[in-house]
Amino acid sequence: MRMVDLIEKKRDGKALTKKEIRYIIEGYTAGEIPDYQMSAFAMAVFFRGMTEEEMAELTMAMVDSGEKIDLSEIKGIKVDKHSTGGVGDKTTLVLAPLVASAGVPVAKMSGRGLGHTGGTIDKLESIPGFHVEIDNRQFVRLVNQNKIAVVGQTGNLTPADKKLYALRDVTATVNSIPLIASSIMSKKIAAGADAIVLDVKTGSGAFMKNIEESKKLAKAMVKIGENVGKKTIAVISDMSQPLGFAIGNALEVQEAIDTLKGEGPEDLTELCLTLGSYMVYMAEKADSLEKARKLLEQSIASGKALETFKTFVSAQGGDASIVDDPSKLPHSSYTFELKAKEEGYVNEIAADAVGTAAMWLGAGRATKDAAIDLAVGLILHKKIGDYVKKGETFVTIYSNQQDIEKVKQILYDSIKISNNKTKKPVLIYETITN
Amino acid sequence: MRMVDLIEKKRDGKALTKKEIRYIIEGYTAGEIPDYQMSAFAMAVFFRGMTEEEMAELTMAMVDSGEKIDLSEIKGIKVDKHSTGGVGDKTTLVLAPLVASAGVPVAKMSGRGLGHTGGTIDKLESIPGFHVEIDNRQFVRLVNQNKIAVVGQTGNLTPADKKLYALRDVTATVNSIPLIASSIMSKKIAAGADAIVLDVKTGSGAFMKNIEESKKLAKAMVKIGENVGKKTIAVISDMSQPLGFAIGNALEVQEAIDTLKGEGPEDLTELCLTLGSYMVYMAEKADSLEKARKLLEQSIASGKALETFKTFVSAQGGDASIVDDPSKLPHSSYTFELKAKEEGYVNEIAADAVGTAAMWLGAGRATKDAAIDLAVGLILHKKIGDYVKKGETFVTIYSNQQDIEKVKQILYDSIKISNNKTKKPVLIYETITN
Repeated sequence: MRMVDLIEKKRDGKALTKKEIRYIIEGYTAGEIPDYQMSAFAMAVFFRGMTEEEMAELTMAMVDSGEKIDLSEIKGIKVDKHSTGGVGDKTTLVLAPLVASAGVPVAKMSGRGLGHTGGTIDKLESIPGFHVEIDNRQFVRLVNQNKIAVVGQTGNLTPADKKLYALRDVTATVNSIPLIASSIMSKKIAAGADAIVLDVKTGSGAFMKNIEESKKLAKAMVKIGENVGKKTIAVISDMSQPLGFAIGNALEVQEAIDTLKGEGPEDLTELCLTLGSYMVYMAEKADSLEKARKLLEQSIASGKALETFKTFVSAQGGDASIVDDPSKLPHSSYTFELKAKEEGYVNEIAADAVGTAAMWLGAGRATKDAAIDLAVGLILHKKIGDYVKKGETFVTIYSNQQDIEKVKQILYDSIKISNNKTKKPVLIYETITN
Repeated sequence: MRMVDLIEKKRDGKALTKKEIRYIIEGYTAGEIPDYQMSAFAMAVFFRGMTEEEMAELTMAMVDSGEKIDLSEIKGIKVDKHSTGGVGDKTTLVLAPLVASAGVPVAKMSGRGLGHTGGTIDKLESIPGFHVEIDNRQFVRLVNQNKIAVVGQTGNLTPADKKLYALRDVTATVNSIPLIASSIMSKKIAAGADAIVLDVKTGSGAFMKNIEESKKLAKAMVKIGENVGKKTIAVISDMSQPLGFAIGNALEVQEAIDTLKGEGPEDLTELCLTLGSYMVYMAEKADSLEKARKLLEQSIASGKALETFKTFVSAQGGDASIVDDPSKLPHSSYTFELKAKEEGYVNEIAADAVGTAAMWLGAGRATKDAAIDLAVGLILHKKIGDYVKKGETFVTIYSNQQDIEKVKQILYDSIKISNNKTKKPVLIYETITN
């Protein structure tokens, strides 16, 4: 087998065999296939796509390229959740304790990542004392005991995907559905998931800007799950505006706590209940989606969800008293109120621009080793469709810098207010199952 | 400017600016743009193509990436010829002395190359004493004096093309018309051509297997010529069967001599007269194509063409007496006659397979440093459309090995004889000019 022939085969629109895909991924991981062949191959995939069978094999070849997390000592069906990411997306902070409180084992491996804010781990680290440096034995023990634990990414999982992703990033081949789908699925499977719930975001603040592309990606991932024997469902949810009101690390932890108390934003609450119901149902902790949802609603109402959060935080060294005393979370030196220049309805909150504003305040990192400011961020007071009076505060800005003219300008430009009444956007477009 | 953005631009079907193309070629030549970005770019070009303007700029950027041959001391209009290559293609051996005899300055830089037989230089080196190691001053002097000289490739011409070609070869991106066209044109222009005559081969023995692709390539090159101010025409000629009868280095020299004497194969003679007429006309040595052709025909008839060949050979150290005594050319130890198993008409002579047979005998080299056997090869006695009697010799094999069963088998398989009468293939399909 020669890589050049396989590139040509894909270039000419033919499907590769399982053996050929294994050859490519094994050769690339071992450094025997050079980057310049792999990038030409990725570009050919960009143009020609992949069949279901190819995507499944690519996924499993990437899983097999590295270590796999063994969660067999954890009792129950391990259902993992993955979101394709967006602005203000703190669903994991809510979902993990919420479904754990319903008896679903949550053995979460999470990342820091680049973006408008930090990743789940960064956010959790805004709780004083909280840490994710726990070894595998302790991790398993915590999940079996409390149904929940979160660790940082450990081990050499899917090195093929890491290497390929870094290459795609600099060769304009990121935006290929078979490559995105197999990348996401390989990471979840290597991390030990028995079943997977996907939150595919769509809209200006998401990687996939339109619903058709989001559906294609969701379908591709569900198909991969089916073909490799991992039950998978995907929810397509709105990211035309930020999720919830808070954008920023500590601010999002606070909002997650509110949501666990039953006092969270409507959209965040609804999305968590929807995704959570699938997780509970797939973990066989309820025999219908309706019952699963009821279980979660009761858990919030009874305080059990919040209690699970506290237990989880304490178990990983965190100060659980922040739940009752939010002043113990990091606070910024300055707050600024952004006031409406005219009255009217909010027509648009460009999620990507709002994310950029948060990034500009220091809430996110642009490069892997950049520092992150856990205290800063934004609280929206209005969402699309809401009415704003002239002079009313519609965003509060939490900053550690005094000069934030640029941030204000971005927000004024990206949050459009006019006399036109606008409907609230649909939150959940579709659920893709097999 | 970032290469990743330019790859994306091309990937999305947009045309690059001149500045962007220069950035890519200069960066790649300097080693600042890595192979893995260039190969992804080449694959994007494979799928998206290039505009006329992009191709012209790419060509000139590659010309400017290295040294350029200065032929300004040579009097007259320097018309260069390039063939896209095929089996039995010895046109340069005939054309160079033929047009020189009509007063066209032939300052030819030629290669050895890989393939079924050696390149023009290998073929010429089958003449005892002939050598191409002449310095630039001597080269210019010879052309001014005799109208003809041939040198090996010297200097660092089009390094961008060399680097890109090597990369395309291993990334399945060779077969892209804009990349092929700019590669060929850049080499001709860097070698100092004022005007260019292209022989684009089409058929089983050619790089371009069908007439549509050949036309596209021809048009792309003629357009490049127009856009960079170098008069260019392209003739599309048949390569469904080998050109002439001889395949092999010394054997082809012999056939070229025959053709210069007016005793060559019909197709080779006709092709050389056609291409030669364009060269004479473009060099302004005749004011119409008809007059140009007449000039060449007279030159053959009068012996002037052959005389020019002798002068040329002598001037470069070769033994010109081979023209009258072919026994001084290298001869193989064995000859074998391939006899027809049935009577009938020759329906097909698969040029590529016949080339492989010659390669197998040792006439060509598969790797850059492989040795080449100048004496071996094949002489066809029949071409498509000819009638063969049972038991009649239709190929003579010249070999330095005794066991040539494999070669015989290839030839029996690739030369198809049946009762169906078959027309001779068209030799010249079309001429592309502006």
